[in-house]
Amino acid sequence: MNAPVTLGVAGLGTVGAGLLSLLSTHADRLALLTGRDIRVVGVSARSRTKDRGVNLDGVAWFDDPVKLAQDPSISVFVELMGGDEGAARASVEAALKAKKHVVTANKALLAKHGFELAALAEQNGVCLNFEAAVAGGIPVIKTLREALAANKVRRVYGILNGTCNFILSKMQDEGQSFSAALAEAQALGYAEADPTFDIGGFDAAHKLTLLASLAFGTRIAADQVHVEGIERITQGDIEAAVDLGYCIKLLGVATETESGIEVRVNPSMVPEESSIAEVWGVTNCVAIDADYAGTLLLVGPGAGAKATASAVASDIVDVARGLVLPAYVTPTAKLNPFRKATLGQHQGAYYVRLSVLDKPGAMAAIAKRFGDRGVSIESIVQRRPKPAPSSHKPEPSGLATVIIITHETTEAAIREALEAIEADGKVAERPQLIRIEEL
Amino acid sequence: MNAPVTLGVAGLGTVGAGLLSLLSTHADRLALLTGRDIRVVGVSARSRTKDRGVNLDGVAWFDDPVKLAQDPSISVFVELMGGDEGAARASVEAALKAKKHVVTANKALLAKHGFELAALAEQNGVCLNFEAAVAGGIPVIKTLREALAANKVRRVYGILNGTCNFILSKMQDEGQSFSAALAEAQALGYAEADPTFDIGGFDAAHKLTLLASLAFGTRIAADQVHVEGIERITQGDIEAAVDLGYCIKLLGVATETESGIEVRVNPSMVPEESSIAEVWGVTNCVAIDADYAGTLLLVGPGAGAKATASAVASDIVDVARGLVLPAYVTPTAKLNPFRKATLGQHQGAYYVRLSVLDKPGAMAAIAKRFGDRGVSIESIVQRRPKPAPSSHKPEPSGLATVIIITHETTEAAIREALEAIEADGKVAERPQLIRIEEL
Repeated sequence: MNAPVTLGVAGLGTVGAGLLSLLSTHADRLALLTGRDIRVVGVSARSRTKDRGVNLDGVAWFDDPVKLAQDPSISVFVELMGGDEGAARASVEAALKAKKHVVTANKALLAKHGFELAALAEQNGVCLNFEAAVAGGIPVIKTLREALAANKVRRVYGILNGTCNFILSKMQDEGQSFSAALAEAQALGYAEADPTFDIGGFDAAHKLTLLASLAFGTRIAADQVHVEGIERITQGDIEAAVDLGYCIKLLGVATETESGIEVRVNPSMVPEESSIAEVWGVTNCVAIDADYAGTLLLVGPGAGAKATASAVASDIVDVARGLVLPAYVTPTAKLNPFRKATLGQHQGAYYVRLSVLDKPGAMAAIAKRFGDRGVSIESIVQRRPKPAPSSHKPEPSGLATVIIITHETTEAAIREALEAIEADGKVAERPQLIRIEEL
Repeated sequence: MNAPVTLGVAGLGTVGAGLLSLLSTHADRLALLTGRDIRVVGVSARSRTKDRGVNLDGVAWFDDPVKLAQDPSISVFVELMGGDEGAARASVEAALKAKKHVVTANKALLAKHGFELAALAEQNGVCLNFEAAVAGGIPVIKTLREALAANKVRRVYGILNGTCNFILSKMQDEGQSFSAALAEAQALGYAEADPTFDIGGFDAAHKLTLLASLAFGTRIAADQVHVEGIERITQGDIEAAVDLGYCIKLLGVATETESGIEVRVNPSMVPEESSIAEVWGVTNCVAIDADYAGTLLLVGPGAGAKATASAVASDIVDVARGLVLPAYVTPTAKLNPFRKATLGQHQGAYYVRLSVLDKPGAMAAIAKRFGDRGVSIESIVQRRPKPAPSSHKPEPSGLATVIIITHETTEAAIREALEAIEADGKVAERPQLIRIEEL
């Protein structure tokens, strides 16, 4: 048996406690499969007295995670505190400088400081592993760094936020309004009191930043992702999607195009017979289109203490086995600058919902604006307000809901058409625009 | 840059040619991501003169793959010849004894001699990697060996044979008969002239043997797998499944039970709203239930030159990065003997189709036989022969098709009931029995 792997674990919330439980439950298995004992020798957390249901006998306590990160007794620093500055950043930097391998689940930290931390890890010859930062227990980082190393990736996309997928699932399955589904997600602990980070698409954008940087060997910052949340998705949109043979999912999509890399998080129409349409509730999925492997789809729990602990443990196992790879696979000095595609050049079909002021000539004027921009219409339906569930807001009188599906066009063309329609004063509110994805 | 990785490739069929194309296309990428040049220095194949569309300039030719395997110029032997004895076995053994890493796509060889070869690899401190042997481009071996190393696996199952899945898809989507769908699969090159190995479930059994041995750390031989093929699935079964909210898929399933490990390949009823039901055509999928990670589902191309080449290349990348793991993750000396569950103890619900001789009292006699064995019936439907497509054989007069769905019971109980019904002389042919899977 080789020298033990000695862990310092900073952060003992649900994931930290889950990790300690896993390491204890599977200690023999881990020793067998890595040839080394994996031991927690030091921990740091906010409260020393809180009962977390894990045994900390013989484990050194550190009030300061930076001190833990630097302690000579540890060989691997496991950061599970969260936060993109402060203690998390300081302790990860300290660990790397002290030549300790770092395993972290902290997507916010990586989305903000990932490239400098990756460079620091390389300078010190240690790992910066972050399987748990994206899509919980799904081994998507390993798949991109290792299984697909011999492929050029063309596109990576997926359902990266379980909260949004839960809300959209409830809206479709149970006919709930957005606000009722959000309230249920909050009651179940899937959504925060302030849900903006999830439902606004920002959490998914952090994860997509990491996936796309890895997949394309480039430096993408979280604020370079085009982000639209699910706040404006109505029950009417969900019903129209189902009628048309689609589901609405919040997708993160990164695609290599001729004009650069398109990186966006947005509600998308996906065909109801696609595998991704069958990913329900808090489950996540990631699909990768690669030149040799073809399209791989990975589906699994996107969050939760146990699934996240499993991902953290797999990173520790890699360290124990001596696998040291650059954090973004490509050495940081060789990462390409990010060449961002102009979203206006996005090519695709669109779903448009308009609240049209019901006056003579309105439809003709709308159709003309599409025609002027060369946007050709596949179908157009004027929907009656349904006399349905109480959660549906009745339409104000004098308004008609018009659903338009376009043929493939550019984003610039359709946005110009919609701006002209708004300027004409033919609609009562901002048009709803949802991209239809080619999967 | 470290020393180059020098490959000897034996077998230049579609996969071998695909691998050479990949290595040439992505040479720079591979050097960047592994820090080493990956070079093909020797090849061996049946015909030296055949044009394979790949450049073999400067590559040494070996008539004898064993000589290639032992040649001092190579550090990794890539076996893509196929066959469970002969040249494949001899050259892999020779390579391992000469302390060369081995990468192979040969599931038949591994299903028959995997454990002795794995032991030989360990004795010589080299790899025996076989990502391409199971489910083509899907990184399921890596997921089991690495991503889920810190988990106890409870069940692994999946669609492991693209030919069968293609046939079942055609039967469901286009209402084709089994024989028409098989003929189409043969015309497209998805099925061999003698299709027994695929449609009889034996190919899937080879793959399941590897997956289950890995997942449970045990020594399973291919002939210990219970195998049922798809030859007896009729259009009537497909239609009944759809009516009941299921799809029929040929699944390989390995489950840890109290009485041991249940390992079987059989047509299964899977719920139509499950992700696995949306896996169509030649696509494969593997699902893994693990104690911490939860259920992961991996979907992708199960075969094809490019996808298989991608998997082979990922094994080579692992070697280039210095990752040396036991073939079955668990060192061979620590693999457990296989404790096989008695299939009679299998618990589950069943679909039964009977061709009942249409005489007074027949149904009552059948129902009694189920009741005698404590098998409770969830639904029973006597179906009229449909006046439908010409591919449907009309039922002989005097026969009624009866479809029974049972509640959960044991396999022993239902088999005894069916034997009694046959012995009673109430049915015109052997009953159809399909397991309903809990996914």
